[in-house]
Amino acid sequence: MPDAASIIAAKRDGHVLSDQQIDWVIDGFTKGTVADEQMSALAMAIVFRGLNRAETSRWTTAMIASGTRMNFTDLPRPSVDKHSTGGVGDKITLPLAPLVAACGAVVPQLSGRGLGHTGGTLDKLESIPGWQADLDGDSMRRILADPAIGAVVCAAGADLAPADKRLYALRDVTGTVESVALIASSIMSKKIAEGTGALVLDVKVGAGAFMKSIDDARELATAMVELGHDAGLPTVALLTAMDTPLGRTAGNALEVAESVEVLAGGGPTDVVDLTLALAREMLAAAGIHDIDPADRLADGSAMDRWRAMIAAQGGDPTASLPTAQHCETLTARSSGVLTRLDAMAVGLAAWRLGAGRARQGDPVQAGAGVEMHAKPGDRLTVGQPVLTLHTDTPAAFADATAALDGGWAIGPDVVASQHGSLILDRIC
Amino acid sequence: MPDAASIIAAKRDGHVLSDQQIDWVIDGFTKGTVADEQMSALAMAIVFRGLNRAETSRWTTAMIASGTRMNFTDLPRPSVDKHSTGGVGDKITLPLAPLVAACGAVVPQLSGRGLGHTGGTLDKLESIPGWQADLDGDSMRRILADPAIGAVVCAAGADLAPADKRLYALRDVTGTVESVALIASSIMSKKIAEGTGALVLDVKVGAGAFMKSIDDARELATAMVELGHDAGLPTVALLTAMDTPLGRTAGNALEVAESVEVLAGGGPTDVVDLTLALAREMLAAAGIHDIDPADRLADGSAMDRWRAMIAAQGGDPTASLPTAQHCETLTARSSGVLTRLDAMAVGLAAWRLGAGRARQGDPVQAGAGVEMHAKPGDRLTVGQPVLTLHTDTPAAFADATAALDGGWAIGPDVVASQHGSLILDRIC
Repeated sequence: MPDAASIIAAKRDGHVLSDQQIDWVIDGFTKGTVADEQMSALAMAIVFRGLNRAETSRWTTAMIASGTRMNFTDLPRPSVDKHSTGGVGDKITLPLAPLVAACGAVVPQLSGRGLGHTGGTLDKLESIPGWQADLDGDSMRRILADPAIGAVVCAAGADLAPADKRLYALRDVTGTVESVALIASSIMSKKIAEGTGALVLDVKVGAGAFMKSIDDARELATAMVELGHDAGLPTVALLTAMDTPLGRTAGNALEVAESVEVLAGGGPTDVVDLTLALAREMLAAAGIHDIDPADRLADGSAMDRWRAMIAAQGGDPTASLPTAQHCETLTARSSGVLTRLDAMAVGLAAWRLGAGRARQGDPVQAGAGVEMHAKPGDRLTVGQPVLTLHTDTPAAFADATAALDGGWAIGPDVVASQHGSLILDRIC
Repeated sequence: MPDAASIIAAKRDGHVLSDQQIDWVIDGFTKGTVADEQMSALAMAIVFRGLNRAETSRWTTAMIASGTRMNFTDLPRPSVDKHSTGGVGDKITLPLAPLVAACGAVVPQLSGRGLGHTGGTLDKLESIPGWQADLDGDSMRRILADPAIGAVVCAAGADLAPADKRLYALRDVTGTVESVALIASSIMSKKIAEGTGALVLDVKVGAGAFMKSIDDARELATAMVELGHDAGLPTVALLTAMDTPLGRTAGNALEVAESVEVLAGGGPTDVVDLTLALAREMLAAAGIHDIDPADRLADGSAMDRWRAMIAAQGGDPTASLPTAQHCETLTARSSGVLTRLDAMAVGLAAWRLGAGRARQGDPVQAGAGVEMHAKPGDRLTVGQPVLTLHTDTPAAFADATAALDGGWAIGPDVVASQHGSLILDRIC
């Protein structure tokens, strides 16, 4: 007969937990017979001792089993999803989901809201007038089955890996977020429970990401890819650079507008390139090999999907996006080249301007954020606009400016970006 | 402004906690603003990272500050107490407290009840008809001040290091007992808050003790002695062997009877020797150098104190002690020498017979326990009684016998006990 204290002690002492122990402790945590204080002690022991591949797989399976698991295998088209570990200006899901749907796959994406310096996909979409994040399972299935839509980005229901939701909230206040096994399991339990037929992971690396080093990012990506394989879910991970923000906007409505530019065939090169790279990975994972997503951007069919996807969730894709009431522009104090624009500094500034939240449940401003007129490598003349800060609460300008202080620099000549390219590695 | 998650993370990452962080987290835990799940995660981080001497001292001071601190410096005689880390058959407090009082010190001992295989001093004394463990502070002071008594063994009040009490209950269910710093701090916070003027620690080592190795015991003893010194409390520790039970009884009334034998000038040699050794340490720590406690055993004055001490807490020292309703005797299956009698096996057997409890608040049987007719080194003839098991619940005999299986052995010749002597080291 297992008991919580002896399971915690076993992990504390470096032992491998048995399938029975893992099932028992997560089932007990779900039912409330394993107390929060026991789960947080176990999480801390896992931070120190880790979980091996078999333990992590079982842990993930048990988390999935704590709720309901969706299934879209009856749909006529293959399903595939993308998950990003979170970066500044990372609006890729917005053009990507309709683009991949336009290429013949269905994209069932359960997404989240932002916390801290990285924005949340749902927060961005909620800046579109009328758009609703909450969908029941039947509505989700109906939109995915619609041959003119096929993509859904919505909030995860309360019954999707509920034990993981509770554990995540607990880890957040007990200093136990920093475990590769628990991070990988948390992400993958939700993605596997979501019922996608294949998965592409975008693991961010760099100053603006949770994983600061390529080695840490590779470890996390490998753990997640292994969990996908162990669950029979085709999974591929790209490691992508997050030293400078993606694109030229960080915020909610600001990022929606930029995403629409991409869908219209324009937009910043890095956003277009990463959207296409992830789309190609998703299509390959879904078994669709004869379609180039660049064509679907060019011919407007991705934009058609976008409009249909937004409208299906109550949004008006033709409505004007909200704008902030106040803005302030920072200009170049000298002429030269923008040598650095730090993702963390921009993320913190956008957060302080009102685009992000400090606590779950706090509201965000639709129009707030940072607009970047230049990216590293661009030439600037003294007095030229570099960053425009948007907010409804002008008192935030001082904080945002302070966050950006030292976060960008103008130098005499072109300096190579910290990473040679946007895509640093591929793990499958 | 400190916050719990960042303090936990600091310890998790191996940093030294500041005085401010320690004070804040224990004050918050006391008030309930630091949640149990946060304290247990911090405790687990401490299991892995430890606390240095300064951190442990501050932690202890903060635990004491969570409640009231007693003070007996106004009494005309010096006060001194003894604490044992717990062993099987460890009834030493019973003869020791009145003996030291008979030698001129006062002994204010706040004691506990047993859990698991080691008995509790209060459980033993409660087998004396009428004796009450609960005393208010005024009654305790009155008994200590009485020149004919001067010794009190009673339950710690709820306001004595209450944060430690809550933390101990939490550690018990979260696999976080095993931290030398937290064990030392827990013991010493209670002993310092109790107001004793000097302290002697009996740190048990061996199969029947929490500390199995002399190195671990030395580490714990050193940590406690340092905490005493840091708090200005003269503190000495003896490391004593706990491979085989102390004396010839393990139980409640059984141990009281044996203690009374010691006070009457008889009793098993090991119990007498350890009582005298600890009494000499206590008297030295209290600054009393001209009295040999052996004389006070011989002249009956220790017995007088015992009777007065028991009577002062409502007990009848002349009443017959309760006996168990059933007993069973295990006999020698061959002739030879008892080469081994394992403390843990005897402790488990006594527990299963009803002398101990599995859960706080469970009742214990006054008469239950194990009587040992032979100790390692004693010669035995086939058929001769070795152990008598006492219980009110005869169904327990099978469990107790199973616990003893392999726990004792008869061999052809005398085998030296695992430790050469009872007292293994002295740390001051």
